[in-house]
Amino acid sequence: MTCVKRDSRSLLRFPGLGVLPGVTLLLSLVFPPHGAAVDRLEGHRQVARALIEEGLRTCEAHAILTELTSVAGHRLSGSRGAEIAVAFALRMMRSQGLEEVRVESLMVPRWIRGELEEALIIGGGADTVSLSVCAVGGSIATPEEGVFAEVVEVQSFEELHALGERVREKIVFFNRPMDPTILDTFTAYEGAVDQRGSGAVEAALMGGVAALIRSVTTQLDDVPHTGSMRYRKSVPKIPAAAVSTLGANRLSSLLQAGERPRVRLRLSCETMSDVPSGNVLGQITGSKYPNEIILVGAHLDSWDKGTGAHDNGAGCAQAIEVLRLIRTLGMKPARTIRAVLFMNEENGNRGGPAYAEAPERAGEKHIAALESDRGGFSPRGFTVDGDSLLLQRVERWQPLFEELGAGHFGAGHAGVDISPLVENGVPGFGLLVDDQRYFDYHHSENDTIDKVHRRELEMGAIVQALLCYLISEEGL
Amino acid sequence: MTCVKRDSRSLLRFPGLGVLPGVTLLLSLVFPPHGAAVDRLEGHRQVARALIEEGLRTCEAHAILTELTSVAGHRLSGSRGAEIAVAFALRMMRSQGLEEVRVESLMVPRWIRGELEEALIIGGGADTVSLSVCAVGGSIATPEEGVFAEVVEVQSFEELHALGERVREKIVFFNRPMDPTILDTFTAYEGAVDQRGSGAVEAALMGGVAALIRSVTTQLDDVPHTGSMRYRKSVPKIPAAAVSTLGANRLSSLLQAGERPRVRLRLSCETMSDVPSGNVLGQITGSKYPNEIILVGAHLDSWDKGTGAHDNGAGCAQAIEVLRLIRTLGMKPARTIRAVLFMNEENGNRGGPAYAEAPERAGEKHIAALESDRGGFSPRGFTVDGDSLLLQRVERWQPLFEELGAGHFGAGHAGVDISPLVENGVPGFGLLVDDQRYFDYHHSENDTIDKVHRRELEMGAIVQALLCYLISEEGL
Repeated sequence: MTCVKRDSRSLLRFPGLGVLPGVTLLLSLVFPPHGAAVDRLEGHRQVARALIEEGLRTCEAHAILTELTSVAGHRLSGSRGAEIAVAFALRMMRSQGLEEVRVESLMVPRWIRGELEEALIIGGGADTVSLSVCAVGGSIATPEEGVFAEVVEVQSFEELHALGERVREKIVFFNRPMDPTILDTFTAYEGAVDQRGSGAVEAALMGGVAALIRSVTTQLDDVPHTGSMRYRKSVPKIPAAAVSTLGANRLSSLLQAGERPRVRLRLSCETMSDVPSGNVLGQITGSKYPNEIILVGAHLDSWDKGTGAHDNGAGCAQAIEVLRLIRTLGMKPARTIRAVLFMNEENGNRGGPAYAEAPERAGEKHIAALESDRGGFSPRGFTVDGDSLLLQRVERWQPLFEELGAGHFGAGHAGVDISPLVENGVPGFGLLVDDQRYFDYHHSENDTIDKVHRRELEMGAIVQALLCYLISEEGL
Repeated sequence: MTCVKRDSRSLLRFPGLGVLPGVTLLLSLVFPPHGAAVDRLEGHRQVARALIEEGLRTCEAHAILTELTSVAGHRLSGSRGAEIAVAFALRMMRSQGLEEVRVESLMVPRWIRGELEEALIIGGGADTVSLSVCAVGGSIATPEEGVFAEVVEVQSFEELHALGERVREKIVFFNRPMDPTILDTFTAYEGAVDQRGSGAVEAALMGGVAALIRSVTTQLDDVPHTGSMRYRKSVPKIPAAAVSTLGANRLSSLLQAGERPRVRLRLSCETMSDVPSGNVLGQITGSKYPNEIILVGAHLDSWDKGTGAHDNGAGCAQAIEVLRLIRTLGMKPARTIRAVLFMNEENGNRGGPAYAEAPERAGEKHIAALESDRGGFSPRGFTVDGDSLLLQRVERWQPLFEELGAGHFGAGHAGVDISPLVENGVPGFGLLVDDQRYFDYHHSENDTIDKVHRRELEMGAIVQALLCYLISEEGL
């Protein structure tokens, strides 16, 4: 577009506010005089405006995320990067002036990828082709010489079961893509991720010798996407690897052409003993009700591909930024607002339960828990996870979020890390974002800081800060 | 996030629809039996679902845009690229089976950048520094040896006027950034773009010898952003160039430090005689009311930096894709739906008025005009530009768009190209998108196809197709 637009009225403008008259006004807004609901809404609107001005002026969440991904790199549970990340988070929270900054210890699984990840298509009418693969998190290694076998391609477990004896001694190639026609990419992801989670078990049950899984991603490229998988006690363990979508298409083409290529798969990954790590906490203690806690959380661990910038460095940077915004604006929330960076969501889910069950929880009352774990994209709203009236109660704030482009409030799962709290009756809120790009990067080398837009990331922090503030001042 | 999410309910799911039962059903939906409004809404919802399935399965808009930007490159009015783009658009519309595919001729301005764009900071306590600059569209050239002068920095025209005689013989450096604290980037753009549009005139009025303008962008990088500027008849013409934001910061730092560096600016741009070009049209003729037209438009020309992928190749690809979707799904719209790719929006705005005033308009009745010119990002809704009751009338469809994440309908300017129609009373609709990234790329070398996400672009086409369909079947 050109510069001769006359009047492109804003979708997201706060009319008539102008420059914020400073912190003094804000302090009075935090405890607004009792009056009509409309006055209260207008007061809240000015808080929103102040959060936007401070947030978008500095875009500090992106600076925090840049530093986290730079000093720690990937942060797979039990890795050196995860250890560095814990130290970084403590340092960052302290430098932001947060209170009660601490680690709550827990033991985490330790799986290491090793040096070797290789898959070659050999024979079957073509030159040897190297496929871009990576071990799926939790997989056992192959023997040193690799697994070398013919391949059967299936789109589903049903199809696998129907093949019966033809699966024996074969590598099972799970090639069902994410359904591109589903607008919500998380729903599409859930429709495909069973192959990665349970493919090895299902293949082994039928006598397969390895599982090769089409990467669960929206991208067509040559980058494999990892993620977790599970073994079952009664079923032999076989190795499992993800193959890039381009590699999967190549292999599938050869099979469709009636070729019978063999694949040699070599992985050197290994599960080690559990190691100590911890959840990192910091807070602004409530001025009126210090024992009533609003948690804003994300997971500090990541997969070991890329640097987990969207998953879930973004959420961690936002959680810290929520508290920085509130402190910087001189707000004194009535209730405690606590950032919790959970360790070990990706491969084991130890952090959330450890937090919920820690002895430190005695005497604390969590009145809400927020989680951001859908990537650092433009916020659209919140899932609301609680009793049937909760959604109705929070919808009174919906117009405020609507003005920020984040007015969608709908019942839904709030987040893995806060699930144990939500199951105990704590109202949960999951940040919803524009998720079209998330699975392009997710669990792969592509998940790096250059994919995170500073304004989009910051807006996610701003809307979470606003929700924390509203719950703190008005309750739920 | 990991794979152990239990129940992340979708923001954007159409419950209970399942697989679409094919085109036969669709044809019956296009002419739904008369019934309750709720049935009609459910019918529309199934059309939306069909558009999504076809659109997101193929993402054809991105393929069209890839080809356009590849074969034509940039498409500045009067350039070889613009000529190729007209031929490409005709070929593409014909290959899609559109009707009445044609060019409506018009004369367009022709400005050429030339080979030379150079700005050097010389002296003032530093080594010679090369600034990343580009001529602003429409600027005159400098003398061959360049303009060589001291620099005065200002943030506004008021500040410039207050400097009085101190501006004489100086290069005026307009350094007011886009306000980052404004959430809506188009509003922030409008708050800064006066410097580019009128800076040369204002500087010349005060005796300045050239204008150097901070690039109007949300990015801090070393890429200059061009765009249009105007001269005034009574005021001497001086050359005008945009400088990258990093370059602007560098120059400003030197000036702030009390240095008095001189800048040598050399530009070789030139305005040539007008040349013939044209708007490109294609349509699906209405089955019931062929003379009632719903226009879906965008501008085919671009600036000559990058390949105008977002601005406005994206809108062009979407306009064609709107008609492809409707044809592919076997819909027979009651009214004519016409794609118009306007030539010359950026530097002269000839295409829109030429279309509105063409003799071909006689006997045609435009009942609505849509424009997409805010980039190929996730759609959020539409500006609605018309009489005071129009917004109310279209809000009956709002729930349908809400389900697509594009439910914001608000009064606002619809688009430059369709303005002449809107001024004549045709209801206008401007596609609103998530615009946080738009001005990172806008009018610069960064505006290339790799910045356009295929699903986000396609969703913009889908919501426009849905709006065209609704207006076609129900009127306004």
